[in-house]
Amino acid sequence: MLEILTMAETNKGSEEEVAIAFVNHYYHLFDNDRSSLSTLYNPTSLLTFEGQKICGVEDISNKLKQLPFDQCRHSISTVDSQPSSIAGGCGGIIVFVSGSLQLHGEDHPLRFSQTFHLIPVLQGSFFVQNEMFRLNYG
Amino acid sequence: MLEILTMAETNKGSEEEVAIAFVNHYYHLFDNDRSSLSTLYNPTSLLTFEGQKICGVEDISNKLKQLPFDQCRHSISTVDSQPSSIAGGCGGIIVFVSGSLQLHGEDHPLRFSQTFHLIPVLQGSFFVQNEMFRLNYG
Repeated sequence: MLEILTMAETNKGSEEEVAIAFVNHYYHLFDNDRSSLSTLYNPTSLLTFEGQKICGVEDISNKLKQLPFDQCRHSISTVDSQPSSIAGGCGGIIVFVSGSLQLHGEDHPLRFSQTFHLIPVLQGSFFVQNEMFRLNYG
Repeated sequence: MLEILTMAETNKGSEEEVAIAFVNHYYHLFDNDRSSLSTLYNPTSLLTFEGQKICGVEDISNKLKQLPFDQCRHSISTVDSQPSSIAGGCGGIIVFVSGSLQLHGEDHPLRFSQTFHLIPVLQGSFFVQNEMFRLNYG
């Protein structure tokens, strides 16, 4: 759950630095060691994947492992981030990503958008409270 | 700021109902009475529009009014929503939209993705704390 600790500590500063560290970490794990993504969630985490709602570390981890492709490569086009709460709030960060996803054996990459809400648990460490993924067709 | 009050009161229930009511309201205002979008923000609101960060009702309202097109029509493809906080949190809702944007005089619509974070201010009423917009090229 605290996998981001080291990166966020290294990149002390704005939510943009945390967001970029998180995005690099998340897609690196997704493309190289997908089962390790489970370290980013906790029992309250929510994932909506192409409209399907999934809750909690175990079910989210199973969903990601059982996606109908084994090898893939994400290319990130844009990363936007904002603090999710007003002064005195929880210190969360909303991260909004667009990019493309190349599946092994497919000719053309698929465009996607993805939103994360990161919540701090200790100073400099975050978990994924919210995640929503959509392919962008058309 | 409390423009969503009536809709949210009518649609008591899940965050999905609030999200759909909000999305219908937001894009209706955007396409028909863009200056009225200012009613959805407050002084702490954040908008990131194609990477440009803007803060507060007045600057956000000015940005939206000054976009380089007068007439447009949004078509919504998907609306995903999740509660933004764990138990005991603020009751916010993250709304993740994909769709297309037809500009007046253009042949082809533009694909876009947009994320909102709605924060409750009174029972059944929300304002936009966070908003991020990206066109999806390619």
